[in-house]
Parts: sequence; C-alpha cells; structure tokens
Amino acid sequence: MPEKLIVIGGGTAGTSVALHVRKKAPDMDITIFTKDKHTAYSPCGIPFVLSGQVSSFEELIMHDVQNYKDQCIDVQTNTEVTAIDLPSKSIIANGKQFCYDKLVIATGSLSLIPQIPGTDKKGVYILRSLDDGQKVKDAMNNAKKAVIVGAGPTGLEIATAFIKVGIDTTVVEKAPYVLPCMLDPDMASPVQNHLEDLGVKVMTGFSLGSINGSDNVEFVTIGKEVVTADLVILCTGTMPSTCLSRQAGIGVGETEGIKVDSAMRVAENVYAAGDCVEVMNCITNRPCLSPRGSSAVMQAKVVAENVCGGSMVFGPVLHPTICLVGDLQVGSVGVTSNVAKNAELTPVEGKAKGLTRSSYYPEAKKINIKLLFFEKRLIGAQVISEEGAKERIDALSLVIKSGMTAQQMLMAETCYAPPMSAIVDVLTLALEDVIDL
Amino acid sequence: MPEKLIVIGGGTAGTSVALHVRKKAPDMDITIFTKDKHTAYSPCGIPFVLSGQVSSFEELIMHDVQNYKDQCIDVQTNTEVTAIDLPSKSIIANGKQFCYDKLVIATGSLSLIPQIPGTDKKGVYILRSLDDGQKVKDAMNNAKKAVIVGAGPTGLEIATAFIKVGIDTTVVEKAPYVLPCMLDPDMASPVQNHLEDLGVKVMTGFSLGSINGSDNVEFVTIGKEVVTADLVILCTGTMPSTCLSRQAGIGVGETEGIKVDSAMRVAENVYAAGDCVEVMNCITNRPCLSPRGSSAVMQAKVVAENVCGGSMVFGPVLHPTICLVGDLQVGSVGVTSNVAKNAELTPVEGKAKGLTRSSYYPEAKKINIKLLFFEKRLIGAQVISEEGAKERIDALSLVIKSGMTAQQMLMAETCYAPPMSAIVDVLTLALEDVIDL
Repeated sequence: MPEKLIVIGGGTAGTSVALHVRKKAPDMDITIFTKDKHTAYSPCGIPFVLSGQVSSFEELIMHDVQNYKDQCIDVQTNTEVTAIDLPSKSIIANGKQFCYDKLVIATGSLSLIPQIPGTDKKGVYILRSLDDGQKVKDAMNNAKKAVIVGAGPTGLEIATAFIKVGIDTTVVEKAPYVLPCMLDPDMASPVQNHLEDLGVKVMTGFSLGSINGSDNVEFVTIGKEVVTADLVILCTGTMPSTCLSRQAGIGVGETEGIKVDSAMRVAENVYAAGDCVEVMNCITNRPCLSPRGSSAVMQAKVVAENVCGGSMVFGPVLHPTICLVGDLQVGSVGVTSNVAKNAELTPVEGKAKGLTRSSYYPEAKKINIKLLFFEKRLIGAQVISEEGAKERIDALSLVIKSGMTAQQMLMAETCYAPPMSAIVDVLTLALEDVIDL
Repeated sequence: MPEKLIVIGGGTAGTSVALHVRKKAPDMDITIFTKDKHTAYSPCGIPFVLSGQVSSFEELIMHDVQNYKDQCIDVQTNTEVTAIDLPSKSIIANGKQFCYDKLVIATGSLSLIPQIPGTDKKGVYILRSLDDGQKVKDAMNNAKKAVIVGAGPTGLEIATAFIKVGIDTTVVEKAPYVLPCMLDPDMASPVQNHLEDLGVKVMTGFSLGSINGSDNVEFVTIGKEVVTADLVILCTGTMPSTCLSRQAGIGVGETEGIKVDSAMRVAENVYAAGDCVEVMNCITNRPCLSPRGSSAVMQAKVVAENVCGGSMVFGPVLHPTICLVGDLQVGSVGVTSNVAKNAELTPVEGKAKGLTRSSYYPEAKKINIKLLFFEKRLIGAQVISEEGAKERIDALSLVIKSGMTAQQMLMAETCYAPPMSAIVDVLTLALEDVIDL
C-alpha cells in the first residue's frame, strides 16, 4: 500500500507541499482538503485586480484542480476538516474519517477584525479570498468615499488602487507612521508624502472608533473626527488559524502560531507550514510569525523533503518584504529600529540618498536607503525607490545571512553603466555614512 | 609649508583622488595635470549621447575646472606631463619642473588599434574623449552603413545607438560570440539574437581584414566578405597608458599595467590608480586589469586614504560589469567558464529562466541567469533581463566576497510582491539547478 499524505489547507503552503512531495514520491497517495472553492491563488495580487492593472481574479489562481488531478493529487475543495485525531492518525471532514500516514497542517491565517461597533454593516469588507476581492471590486463601482483601516502593505496597495479609479480615500493607522512593521519613522515619511501627493488622506496615530449607518456604512469616527464613507476595508492584520490544531492538543507559541521544530515538525509524522506556524526571527532570536507567500514556499520545500524521509531544516527568518505604494517600491529586511531596540540591540544607522542611474541619464530615479548595524553587522535595511528596490532587499537579505561586516560590504564592488546605475552606488554611500561605527 | 600632491591624469581616478584628499587634508597643495581639455567626464555615457538618449556631451562632464578651483584644487588642462623623476621627486610639464611630496599616477588607458591597413582613413574612429564622441556624432549625420569592430559592451552600445538612428550596422567580433569577456557562449546567444532582432548584423569569429577607400572609408573586408561602410568604429579594447611611468623606471606587470602593492603604492610616496594599474583577480589570484570607472573610484579612495597617512588596502577584483544592449541589461561578475577553466577551476553550472514579476502582472520581463560554482562557492554569475540585472549582479558580487556556499545562498529569503517579483525568485531556481553539486 502506498503511504497516505493528507494536507489540510489548499493555500500556497499546502499546495506547494503536495507538489514537492509528488516530485519526490511518485507513489505517495496525496489528498488536499480545503474549505475554499479555489486551490492556491495569489492573495497578494488582489489589490492589482482592484486597480485594473491585472484584468481578472481568475488570473491569480496558480493552478486549477485539474492541474493537481493531472499529477495524481486529489483536491477536495469546499471541504472543511473539523477534527484531527493524532492517536488514530486520522482526520474528520464532511463527517467522514480519513486516515493518514503523514499529515501536513497548512491552515493559514484569519483576518483580525477590530473590536468596534459596526464592522457588520454593509460596505465593510476584509480582503482574503478571491470572493472577497470580487465583492470589493463590485462595491467600487458605486463607491465615492472609502476608509482603509491599517497602513500595512495591503492597506496602502488598496489605497493606491482606490485613488487610481477616483475614489476619495482615507487611510487610518493606529501607529504614528505608515508601514510600521517595515519602516522606521524617517523612512515612512517620504512614503506618506507620496500617498498624499497621489491624493490619499493619511491619518496616523488614530484608531477607528466606530462604523455607523442604518444598513450600509455611512460614516466612521476617527478620534473626534467624523469621516463619511460608503466603503470600509479592514486591513488590520491576521492571526494564525489554529483552532483545529489546538482542539487536537497541538501546542501554539507566544505568537499564537503552531509550535514546530526546525524540521517544521509538530509531532511524529505531523508537520505544519505557512501562515499558521510560529518561526524564529533571525536577528532577535525570538518567536515570530512569517505570513508571507515566499516564506510559505520555502517552508513547504522543507516539509516535503522531511515528509519524504529527508532531514531539511527551516532556519530563522529575516522577513524580506516589498510592496508597491503608488509609484514607490518600498522594501525592508531584518529588523526595524524599534524591533531592534526592543530586543536590546541598539542599532547604528547608515543612511543615504542617491540616484538609480547617472544623473545625466533620462528618468534617473531617486533612491533612499537606510541600513541598521549592530556590532558591525547588518541587522536591518530599508529601501525606497521607483526601481530596483526588490533586488536590493534580496541582496541585503543575503548579506545579513552571510554575516559580512560593514567594512567587508564596503569593499565589495558594484557595477556601473549610466543607464542602470550611478558610478558610486547608494549602498556605498550608506556604508560610508556608518563605517566608523 | 603645506605638503604638495601632484596627480598626473584628470580622469575619474585622478580627480577622485584629488577630491578625496581635499576632504581629508584641507591644507594639502593639490595640482592635477591633464593633457585633455576637459576634467573627468563619463566616457561610458558617450554611446547614449550618440543614441540621443542623453542630449549633449557637456552633460557627461562631472565637474568643471571651476568646481575644482572652488575646492582649492589646481587643474592644469591641456598640459602633458613628459617626465617623472623619482629621485628628485619632481615631474616635467610644459618644459617646467614641478616638485611633489606625494605623486599619484592616473594616466589611464589607450585604445588598441588593430594592425590592419586603412585605420587612418577618414570615417574611421575610436571613441575615447568627448571630442571623439562629437566627431562620431557629426559623422552619423551622413552615414548610411557602419561597421563596429569589437562586440564588447561599448561596441554593442554603439551598435544599438546606430541602429536606433537608422544606420545600417554590422558588428565584427573575432571571438566566436558577443561579449566574450562577460558571458559564456550560451548566455551570449540570446544577446546576439536580440541585436539581430533590432536589425544589427553580427559577424562573430571574424577579424577585420582591411579598411579601404580612396580618402574616406568605402568598404572593409571581413574574411572573404566585402562590406561597404562609410563609418567604422574601432572598439577593440584598451591597454594601460604607462610610457611615462616606464621611462621613469616604474615596473609594469604581465598585463602591462603598473605594478602596485595592496596599498596602491608604486614606490615611496608614489601611488597609481585607475586604468593604468595592474590589480589581482579575486577568483583566479592572477594579475589582471580593471579598466572601469567604478573600480577607479574605489582605488582612488584607497590612494587618497594612504596619501593622507592611512593604511587602506585595495583587494582583488571581481569585475562586476553591466551594459545595456538594446532593451537588455546584461551583467556579469567574477569569472566566465573560459577564464575559470584556464585557471583550472572547472565550474559547476546552475542555470534558470524566470520572470521579474508574477506571470499575471503586466510587463513581466524574462530573466535569464547562470551561476558558476567551484567547490560549492560562487565564482561567477551572468544575468540578462530588461530590468533589475544591475542590482542582481551587485548582490552576487557581495555573495562572492562573503564566501557563502550554494546551500547557504538557497536558505536566504527573497522578497515577493506581484508587481516586482515572482514568488520563487529565478536565483532560487538557478541554485536548485546546482544544489546537489
């Protein structure tokens, strides 16, 4: 009898595990259970369908069910797993018991809903599934004024989409600056300026007080202000989806994510991957969450390898993150100054502004970079530019992992040609700002 | 009396030394001698003035003479230094003797002219100075057919400029593929295809035989072919300009570049920097030349530090290089397969093709990457894409310097957002191609 693998969750982590296992174990019997009607899609793409840059939600679906069938992976859509029974190595779905040899929990995350009056009014949305996306897309047709709650990457990408189609948009953020999980205040400031130049109203340091209206949302309160709105989007973060696991006696950590060992193992023959797990932060050495598609893909690879008898390790994370706010690519990796200080790693800063091309070359873009060092080694970086920020964040992710010192970084050579770079790269300027640290 | 610094050469290396020294030593008496009528300009920008993307040659001049005067740096333009006398610590320029306490030789490089008949005909150009650039720009007005000799970065950038303004253009390259100093044949092939798609005729594996015509060039011979041409550009490489140094008894190495120690010192109180010096290759540990603006800037910093009493070291080079061929950014760092094999470092290859954005995102660009490993460590990389290649080459330059293994590289995280990246980066795919090495 072939070994039987059950994967709970049809998102990026779950489907990636199944596809990787199929490559390594052609005979394994693989079933994915998902309560969604779609298999893995790209939730990160939803704001760009709303903006019209991507033409339809269907384009965000990575593979359809048939594609999995073609690889002998059984996908049970619209099927919620209601119990895991570890002792009998089985799960319950649709009232039926299914046995496994290996189990992978990839139950993802849930949106956090602010505990304020009125979140149930018509016109108030969260954005998780493609169905959510479609509802918001439909609502945009008649919307005049929107309030977006939360100035994280998704909130700001949606704000950009709304303003683009002519909806009067306000963003409310309880932190004193935008993108607080990615940036320091001084780097957040040009991003906020850019949003305001686009026409977005940004209210930082405020929480949403209430959502009001008879049936549909009509206005919200923000501090003492009353802001009229016919569309409210809640982008107030996520939490690991762990009810099923906790009911089965599986432990969660201080972040509420499922506790796994470095092999992403929960218990014998049971693994977890994706937004539902707790991982370790590479800089602070403290538990953290890493609810990102690229992290899910890496974790899935580790789980698949280990499901098939390997011994691969998922290391601590650096969270390289990039988002597009209007025309600005905004990226960060490692820790912000706040996170560093909370972990008692008081950082030394190197900052520089430069250009992405020779100053005389057309369309040279401004680039703004901030590096954080602790004991001569990079622990965080923030980059803002209209081009090349993603590749720079990836580079700095590699640098942090390598353990290079600032001095060693400064000695590395950068390439130069007028249409693509300045003769002295902005990274070099930022390093020179810090080099006597 | 303030110390007296004489810098021979007003290019990137020479002027950068002067500017850095001025910052560190406000009282130093600094004179730059240059036989050119301009101070440092960006020769790399010339092809983009020819193409019309940059509007004038004046824009390529980094600082004018007044700018140096404002910083109390005396610049003697149109002034050739004809002798260096080390024992008396003096130089001769315009028949007059000038004494120095510290001397910096930054005499740059000379174009190599193929030893064939007809290089003196009208319509045959090299492209070194802004005056050369202006002459070619003028000649382009009446040119119908051009031949470019040499398919290095400059040759291909000029070919792109010519074809853009409607000149029928042939590139001749004696190596069997284009960009032979940067790429392996398999990576050169898509670049050649792109040039041909743009309308450039590319003849690899051929040397120019002769340049013919009564007064002006009328045709050239390439192998057995006769190619009509009214414009010929020789982009057949450069050599260090060292006559002056050799006359003074200063030694040159096997590459014909001035021999310097790791502090860029030639002799007591005498330093050299830029295209005229021999440096070490970081991968092969053999002497090499590094005639690039970004290398000159780094060397200048080291020389300036040491002129001012410091003890800074210029390490072995990796030659990160980038050029724009039509729409393609083509970059490389470290060694090519050929150079590796000649140094008895038989490389293991990892190759991948991917996209720069999510496949559903508009204008996702193809990206093509090749990594070369020796004993599990990166020794070379080649990247071709319409976007982000420069930043990726810089990243891989850092990686080589860090000494990370392929496995460690694979464990580094990359960031993801649909408008700027694929969920699995092409670097990861190339590493997976090689990871069982």
